[in-house]
Amino acid sequence: MNRGKLLPNSNHRPWFRFIWQWQGSVIPAILPRVSACAFFALGVTCLYYFGINVALPLKSGLVPSIVLGLLLVFRTNTAYERYWEGRKLWGTLINTVRNLSRTIWVIIKENDSSDRTEKITTLKLLIAFAIATKLQLRSEPVNEELERFLPQEGYNKLCTMSHPPLEIAFWIGDYLQQQYEKQAIDSYQLTAMFKLLDTMVDVLGACERILKNPIPLAYTIHLKQLVLLYCLTLPFQFVDELGWMTAPIVALISFTILGIEAIGIEIEDPFGYDANDLPLDQICYTMDRNIEDLITLDPSVSYFQENQPQ
Amino acid sequence: MNRGKLLPNSNHRPWFRFIWQWQGSVIPAILPRVSACAFFALGVTCLYYFGINVALPLKSGLVPSIVLGLLLVFRTNTAYERYWEGRKLWGTLINTVRNLSRTIWVIIKENDSSDRTEKITTLKLLIAFAIATKLQLRSEPVNEELERFLPQEGYNKLCTMSHPPLEIAFWIGDYLQQQYEKQAIDSYQLTAMFKLLDTMVDVLGACERILKNPIPLAYTIHLKQLVLLYCLTLPFQFVDELGWMTAPIVALISFTILGIEAIGIEIEDPFGYDANDLPLDQICYTMDRNIEDLITLDPSVSYFQENQPQ
Amino acid sequence: MNRGKLLPNSNHRPWFRFIWQWQGSVIPAILPRVSACAFFALGVTCLYYFGINVALPLKSGLVPSIVLGLLLVFRTNTAYERYWEGRKLWGTLINTVRNLSRTIWVIIKENDSSDRTEKITTLKLLIAFAIATKLQLRSEPVNEELERFLPQEGYNKLCTMSHPPLEIAFWIGDYLQQQYEKQAIDSYQLTAMFKLLDTMVDVLGACERILKNPIPLAYTIHLKQLVLLYCLTLPFQFVDELGWMTAPIVALISFTILGIEAIGIEIEDPFGYDANDLPLDQICYTMDRNIEDLITLDPSVSYFQENQPQ
Amino acid sequence: MNRGKLLPNSNHRPWFRFIWQWQGSVIPAILPRVSACAFFALGVTCLYYFGINVALPLKSGLVPSIVLGLLLVFRTNTAYERYWEGRKLWGTLINTVRNLSRTIWVIIKENDSSDRTEKITTLKLLIAFAIATKLQLRSEPVNEELERFLPQEGYNKLCTMSHPPLEIAFWIGDYLQQQYEKQAIDSYQLTAMFKLLDTMVDVLGACERILKNPIPLAYTIHLKQLVLLYCLTLPFQFVDELGWMTAPIVALISFTILGIEAIGIEIEDPFGYDANDLPLDQICYTMDRNIEDLITLDPSVSYFQENQPQ
Amino acid sequence: MNRGKLLPNSNHRPWFRFIWQWQGSVIPAILPRVSACAFFALGVTCLYYFGINVALPLKSGLVPSIVLGLLLVFRTNTAYERYWEGRKLWGTLINTVRNLSRTIWVIIKENDSSDRTEKITTLKLLIAFAIATKLQLRSEPVNEELERFLPQEGYNKLCTMSHPPLEIAFWIGDYLQQQYEKQAIDSYQLTAMFKLLDTMVDVLGACERILKNPIPLAYTIHLKQLVLLYCLTLPFQFVDELGWMTAPIVALISFTILGIEAIGIEIEDPFGYDANDLPLDQICYTMDRNIEDLITLDPSVSYFQENQPQ
Repeated sequence: MNRGKLLPNSNHRPWFRFIWQWQGSVIPAILPRVSACAFFALGVTCLYYFGINVALPLKSGLVPSIVLGLLLVFRTNTAYERYWEGRKLWGTLINTVRNLSRTIWVIIKENDSSDRTEKITTLKLLIAFAIATKLQLRSEPVNEELERFLPQEGYNKLCTMSHPPLEIAFWIGDYLQQQYEKQAIDSYQLTAMFKLLDTMVDVLGACERILKNPIPLAYTIHLKQLVLLYCLTLPFQFVDELGWMTAPIVALISFTILGIEAIGIEIEDPFGYDANDLPLDQICYTMDRNIEDLITLDPSVSYFQENQPQ
Repeated sequence: MNRGKLLPNSNHRPWFRFIWQWQGSVIPAILPRVSACAFFALGVTCLYYFGINVALPLKSGLVPSIVLGLLLVFRTNTAYERYWEGRKLWGTLINTVRNLSRTIWVIIKENDSSDRTEKITTLKLLIAFAIATKLQLRSEPVNEELERFLPQEGYNKLCTMSHPPLEIAFWIGDYLQQQYEKQAIDSYQLTAMFKLLDTMVDVLGACERILKNPIPLAYTIHLKQLVLLYCLTLPFQFVDELGWMTAPIVALISFTILGIEAIGIEIEDPFGYDANDLPLDQICYTMDRNIEDLITLDPSVSYFQENQPQ
Repeated sequence: MNRGKLLPNSNHRPWFRFIWQWQGSVIPAILPRVSACAFFALGVTCLYYFGINVALPLKSGLVPSIVLGLLLVFRTNTAYERYWEGRKLWGTLINTVRNLSRTIWVIIKENDSSDRTEKITTLKLLIAFAIATKLQLRSEPVNEELERFLPQEGYNKLCTMSHPPLEIAFWIGDYLQQQYEKQAIDSYQLTAMFKLLDTMVDVLGACERILKNPIPLAYTIHLKQLVLLYCLTLPFQFVDELGWMTAPIVALISFTILGIEAIGIEIEDPFGYDANDLPLDQICYTMDRNIEDLITLDPSVSYFQENQPQ
Repeated sequence: MNRGKLLPNSNHRPWFRFIWQWQGSVIPAILPRVSACAFFALGVTCLYYFGINVALPLKSGLVPSIVLGLLLVFRTNTAYERYWEGRKLWGTLINTVRNLSRTIWVIIKENDSSDRTEKITTLKLLIAFAIATKLQLRSEPVNEELERFLPQEGYNKLCTMSHPPLEIAFWIGDYLQQQYEKQAIDSYQLTAMFKLLDTMVDVLGACERILKNPIPLAYTIHLKQLVLLYCLTLPFQFVDELGWMTAPIVALISFTILGIEAIGIEIEDPFGYDANDLPLDQICYTMDRNIEDLITLDPSVSYFQENQPQ
Repeated sequence: MNRGKLLPNSNHRPWFRFIWQWQGSVIPAILPRVSACAFFALGVTCLYYFGINVALPLKSGLVPSIVLGLLLVFRTNTAYERYWEGRKLWGTLINTVRNLSRTIWVIIKENDSSDRTEKITTLKLLIAFAIATKLQLRSEPVNEELERFLPQEGYNKLCTMSHPPLEIAFWIGDYLQQQYEKQAIDSYQLTAMFKLLDTMVDVLGACERILKNPIPLAYTIHLKQLVLLYCLTLPFQFVDELGWMTAPIVALISFTILGIEAIGIEIEDPFGYDANDLPLDQICYTMDRNIEDLITLDPSVSYFQENQPQ
């Protein structure tokens, strides 16, 4: 049941549990960089104790921490917006698949059982569209995950094409146009369903936009330079005051700063397999289940007709 | 009357009254953590007075307070946007239910009294959709709250299904399609009502999106780590200067910081039963009342016809 | 003329004039709280001069001012967004009333003069909808302001109903449906006008959403606690340094901080009668005037026909 | 040619050139206020050297600079959003005029040459709508700029009306309805064009909303008070340390702060004639040229028919 | 294959590699300004060692770094929003071209092979629209890049016109209207396709809006003045403390500040040829390839008919 699958709300997990969580945190990513900063600080401290005057008595720091802080938060903010936009797009995809499948199921007139079979084939194409989009976003080839939602020939054809989701959208559109020509739907209903199909293609295009356009390069480079500059000048400012404590404290501060920067990198491309990425597989599975539920309902024997004779 | 139920505006309550309010504040949630920080500070102070040199003469703090402040506010901001988006979605649901019910009531032609009965059954399905969405968001099973808005068989059927709101949407769509086949509405009106129904399903999907996608885990973990680091290094910086005052002052500062973090946790999932969550029960009740009002109005004997003979 | 009514742009008022403006400023609201802080500071100073060691030599302040500043600005920002969203909604209402009234006036076919009378009655219902919404948002009962836009019976009926704007929307929808049945408009035009009517009901619902959902309580309480904590700990930090100047300076600082918090409270509910609230009466009056202008234009004798014979 | 008119990108102008630019900068606006602050600081310095103890040894400043900074940036941000929304609205107006004129030109059937003349008259009404909106936003009366886009009688009529753009919208709508009655377009096309006309009226209403609703007064007043308080307390903090350098340095700091506040005032009402306002005249001229280009194209002899015989 | 062209995610590139990247960073742009600041600082240091008292013992800096930081980040933020809006618009253009081309290909009835040829000519006009928009945004004349998507006469005609994309939109609209007159599509389908065409013209207008409306001049000037003021007063504050280290440290700080300002300039106009601009050429190429793929699919022999006989 779907209700059982809702993620446990973070409200209900013990607060302190999160602190020690390794999986999903940025610690694995930043550990090498933090260590590098700590060793550098240790080196500076050694030089200091060997009597070389490396202390820099600058009170405010080379990179004003307010400026660095604002840049880091702006970076995280932007990355989060991309993550959230990606999630919204997949939410739109679920909704559109639900609406289009319900409309197809309820509206298109059936003359014989092959019409019903075609309908089911088309509903499966909707899921195939979502899965093909997922594979496209992950730069993966058409694979057997897609195969069970497609007729064999369709699958073979798809393996040879450059942009699978667009072909699937073409097939769905072509099916709807055929129903229109068979007068199973009228021109107005056709157009309304085409608009839902257009929305699905819009979602595909918008996800590709997020994937292919990272934060501008100039920004990424300058921020990395500032972060490194900030961390590497810390030992010179602290060594006079802190002595041998310099290295662990520089490690803690670079953990703070590098961690925030790493979060931005983690979440700005939300379509992969990381712990912090969107659960695309689960979303596709939800769509599949919703459509399987829909198929069990019988549109021609409606709810009210079942109900009123009794 | 609805007008009597408007929440008292915070403008009109005495300002100081809020200060001491326990219910709805984050104090119950953060008290254990604040106490832990205070006891830790007390321990550090004891060590200090036993002559162990624990004082850390670092002026700026390990975690720059600007960085922590920005992260906390960004966190709160994001959580508030989720809360507000959730509220907007339920506002859209109210509006759509109002618009769809008015359209059904005014437009669909009636031939005999059973048509009127079917209309009323369908208007109740709109409320059932809202209640089923609420239960779905709270991971609660179908219950008697839903029962009175559904025919008995519909209710029984629903108890066996995995995603109740979608089945209800199917029933509403199926009813509209039947009216179209009975020529009580034309194709164009059918499509316009389907669009309103699509909006209701969009709201459902968007609420599920908010529920199932918390703030990225990497962010949550890193922020908790920084908050703890900040609070636990405070005593070392203050003990030299403040002596026995260290513990109460560390308690006050951790109250500030942990409180902000707790607000974010409180409001990021707005569909529960907390004092800070959305009043979903009241919203469903408003919909119910609006539709009951609507049913008392008589669409076939219109306002103008009543009015002009006089 | 409307052009004469445009608010004088703040650009063109002398800059310094604003400084001393009492009306519309937050000073009346915060004066008691600022005085309380000043007297508290005076008390602390007295204790200090009586030789009691109340000075707290903490450099950075108990509540980091960066954190408090960010929270205050986030609060103001959120309140402003609510204010601006409220204004946008009323702007949408004006636009929709203009568009719907023009469409009704131009499109609906007239067979005899009673059709024209009905049209005018309906155009007045559009204004009645806006006024009823205004009254609803201010929790005021139906009153004579509404009376002159409604037929007498309609007014009497409305006095007995729980949600007047929704009834008026029902009457407008019912009128349009009648025109459709009289074939004065076709199904497509009916649906387009229903969509405009839906927009009006959406505005109503969204305004109610803003009114009934203040900033989350947890946030309001924590912010007030922090503001008070900040202001009340100031004297302890300053008394050693400033002596008898402590009280006036604490007064100035609390004026700054409490003033920002008070702005948020002022503008977060924009539908009342305060100097900082939206000019709802003027907006309703503008709608009324626009529709009276429209009625003077004669749609059947069109602009071009008047023009070309010459 | 339009391509030649694109503004030179700021990328390509020498960076230092901007520093000395007077026209378009806020310096003319803030010079008197900056001078006042400087003279006040000079007065304080004189008192100090006369031996009166005016120095205030407060380290952090009365108005915390973080709070003032955040408020100033929030103010500028809000003003910029209004500016940008205004620009977006005019962009929408250009687009809608382009789309509506192309649709009218291509779709409406012509039976004789007077139909073509009427089309051209209507296309000119679209430009007249934009110009009338511009005049309305600038509180200017109907003038000869509008005259050449209107038939003489239309112009005379307009001079007597209170809200010219709405009358022009009525004329356009009336023309479209006539074409529908002459069966030059069908009901569906009529409604689609009415929707574009509605968008134009929406733009008008939204621009009026921006114009008539400045930043809330409470906010404007409090910010001005804080800015003044900040600038006037600076000399007391600096005089002990800086001596006769106090006045120039206070001048520089007030230049910084007052300048940011002045930018907000400059751009929050973007419909005037200032160097920082939107180029409304140029936008209207672009529309005019686009429509003149359109008229030179011949819709009945289409592109493909010209092309294929060869 | 498209999948192979996805940009390598920044996640997967070595972190440190970015630090030394010259291409795409802002270093080339800011090097002269940074050098100027360093030489100025060197000059101040020389004066100081010649015994002239240039040291300014001001602790907090003339331009508060919090204010400057906030302004810089607001500037970068605004520029990024323009960049991202530009990208979104081109994403919308891709989606709309995909949807409109699929709709044309699937829906328009063909009577003979010349109809198919006309269809292909029109699909190429869609790409020509995108390319003409690109050229328009770059202020470049119509060139041979456009030629291969246009019939020869169309190309010649275009060379003489002032706003090429609008003429191409006219041709597409005219083609659709012809199909309507030939009854290859009905009025409803025509309007739906016109709406997609309107979206394409909206994208064009919105891109022109971004291009022609830079950040308000008053803002740009004031920010440059503050940045320069900040960098040029640094040596006076540091020389006493740092001696000959002043120049390199001032260089590093101005590198930080000027770099952030330069990022804003780089990305605020995203339609050029810089490394940080949008890949418009690649986007146009993607559209071309998608349409070539589409043409290989055969709409009259649909997917299902191929499939079911087996």
